[in-house]
Amino acid sequence: MNLRDIGEFGFIARVSRGCLIRPDNIIKAIGDDAAAFTTAPGAVTLITTDLLVERVHFLRHAIAGFDLGYKSLAVNLSDIAAMGGTAREAFVSLGIPENCALEYLDEFYRGMQTLAEQYAVNILGGDTTGSKVDLIINVAVHGLVPPAELLGRDGAKPGDIIFSTGFLGESRAGLHLVLNDIRIDTPELEMLLRAHHRPEPQLREGRFLAQRPGVHAAIDVSDGLSSDVGHILEASSVGARLYAEKIPVSASLADFCARFDFEPVDYALSGGEDYTLICTAAPEHADQLAADFQKTFNRPLFAIGEITATRQMELIYPDGRLASLTPSGWNHFKEK
Amino acid sequence: MNLRDIGEFGFIARVSRGCLIRPDNIIKAIGDDAAAFTTAPGAVTLITTDLLVERVHFLRHAIAGFDLGYKSLAVNLSDIAAMGGTAREAFVSLGIPENCALEYLDEFYRGMQTLAEQYAVNILGGDTTGSKVDLIINVAVHGLVPPAELLGRDGAKPGDIIFSTGFLGESRAGLHLVLNDIRIDTPELEMLLRAHHRPEPQLREGRFLAQRPGVHAAIDVSDGLSSDVGHILEASSVGARLYAEKIPVSASLADFCARFDFEPVDYALSGGEDYTLICTAAPEHADQLAADFQKTFNRPLFAIGEITATRQMELIYPDGRLASLTPSGWNHFKEK
Repeated sequence: MNLRDIGEFGFIARVSRGCLIRPDNIIKAIGDDAAAFTTAPGAVTLITTDLLVERVHFLRHAIAGFDLGYKSLAVNLSDIAAMGGTAREAFVSLGIPENCALEYLDEFYRGMQTLAEQYAVNILGGDTTGSKVDLIINVAVHGLVPPAELLGRDGAKPGDIIFSTGFLGESRAGLHLVLNDIRIDTPELEMLLRAHHRPEPQLREGRFLAQRPGVHAAIDVSDGLSSDVGHILEASSVGARLYAEKIPVSASLADFCARFDFEPVDYALSGGEDYTLICTAAPEHADQLAADFQKTFNRPLFAIGEITATRQMELIYPDGRLASLTPSGWNHFKEK
Repeated sequence: MNLRDIGEFGFIARVSRGCLIRPDNIIKAIGDDAAAFTTAPGAVTLITTDLLVERVHFLRHAIAGFDLGYKSLAVNLSDIAAMGGTAREAFVSLGIPENCALEYLDEFYRGMQTLAEQYAVNILGGDTTGSKVDLIINVAVHGLVPPAELLGRDGAKPGDIIFSTGFLGESRAGLHLVLNDIRIDTPELEMLLRAHHRPEPQLREGRFLAQRPGVHAAIDVSDGLSSDVGHILEASSVGARLYAEKIPVSASLADFCARFDFEPVDYALSGGEDYTLICTAAPEHADQLAADFQKTFNRPLFAIGEITATRQMELIYPDGRLASLTPSGWNHFKEK
């Protein structure tokens, strides 16, 4: 048996056994966007970590140092956002190959610090070492959340409305541009590239959702909408019905799909790296939640479907056709 | 200018500027064994992280999965020990190349869990992803310490006695055995290999030192004795005098050095990866500290020298010869 047989999530399930040695005060161990535990009353500590490896997660020649630093921190802040928390301290490990210019690393730190400043996050430590071939980046972030405001993947209830805090699929379109070396010749393509290289962690949106009544579950879209909704369904033992025409597709993505002949909904469903938040909220609170979100952030909270009791994920097309969805975002190692 | 020109510590100094964005409640930022900050009264939070990269820090064919897992966690627990803390939660990121067997990873987790159990540390999260060539391991550890018991590198005072909690140089001898493919044919060589592959984090010793009066500074020996004492001197703006004949050399290392014609003191001074603790203590408390350590741990606390006001590091030989020491342990990137 090897990793391809069991995939990333199979591997995690396999090695998690025996990892929780002292369960007192642990609220979330392996299996949510961040670990959550208490060390003192009044605040829950959140810790998340993400490893980015050259040629697996990025191509060094295709991403500016600034953007790589920005994104490396952003993907971690996004995990704290998905738990409803405030990000506080970041820890950056770098494995640096000989052919990596100091200027590239300076830019990397400048990008990371630019984002850190926006959210008052300290870069408080880390490790710097060599690497034979690939640039390696591991970021860990520490955050805090009041106990009553912690958001997990496991609270979704049948009848809940499923929301997205932003457009989906743009980052994958940006990746397509990078991988196919497509010249960025319109503002629309520029937007997609930016969505891929400088995702905005939804920390303010996460705090907003965490403080609202009726918000039951949340996750950030890192693996892809269908995959990440799938994580909520699994953790909450529920199902979901998504509406194809409600899945938020930006004008830039629509333009891209028309030009390169892709289906926008496919991009939005299985894209990944969007770093918007998906949340589920009780139906009686849903309208008010969406209205308040619009008022606070001056953009819509998109209702994209609802939680069901069936333990299936379905996609309804405007003509009434119904497709059974399987998570189709990123799952490292697994043969596709 | 490139990384070789400025070295690991030059690089860290360069990129640390601008990293502390919100200094409230931060006790130690970049520059000690772990970051230290408060989120609530009564406890200081410690976070440390270490990146291990195949072919830079280890050779996969030369270390068992169990040992690699054990050591990956141990080096982080050692940083918590050096701050006087209790380790609580660990976060493990793995970048796994295709040619890495699942059985190797199972053993890796078994090694990590074996050590985690000894110190009641949870493996609470992480990230699992692919890697093109090298196995990549990043571990981050969260710990706690009472505010009055936090040990840093920066408290050493002229006149302090410098102590080591254990033998030095064994791990480097173990590395020599690995790199030169030397057959392990005696219990002594077996001990040295074990010192290299399964370092024991001195968490109990760190807590002991943290609670004793007069202990001013501490560090764990990861880069090498001379380099790590150098870190204390720099952080404390002091100097040190070490006595060659007092530097603790185990019988196993003495045996190895006699057999392969090395100088034991050189190994002990510039070895690295010993993961013993070095501390400095006020002279009026030194004898009692050493006696109590012996009583508690049933082995000696080795006095190896004293802190001076000169800002130099000197080594005194038994015949009275005096050598000026420069830190000569690990400094990634820097040309030696």
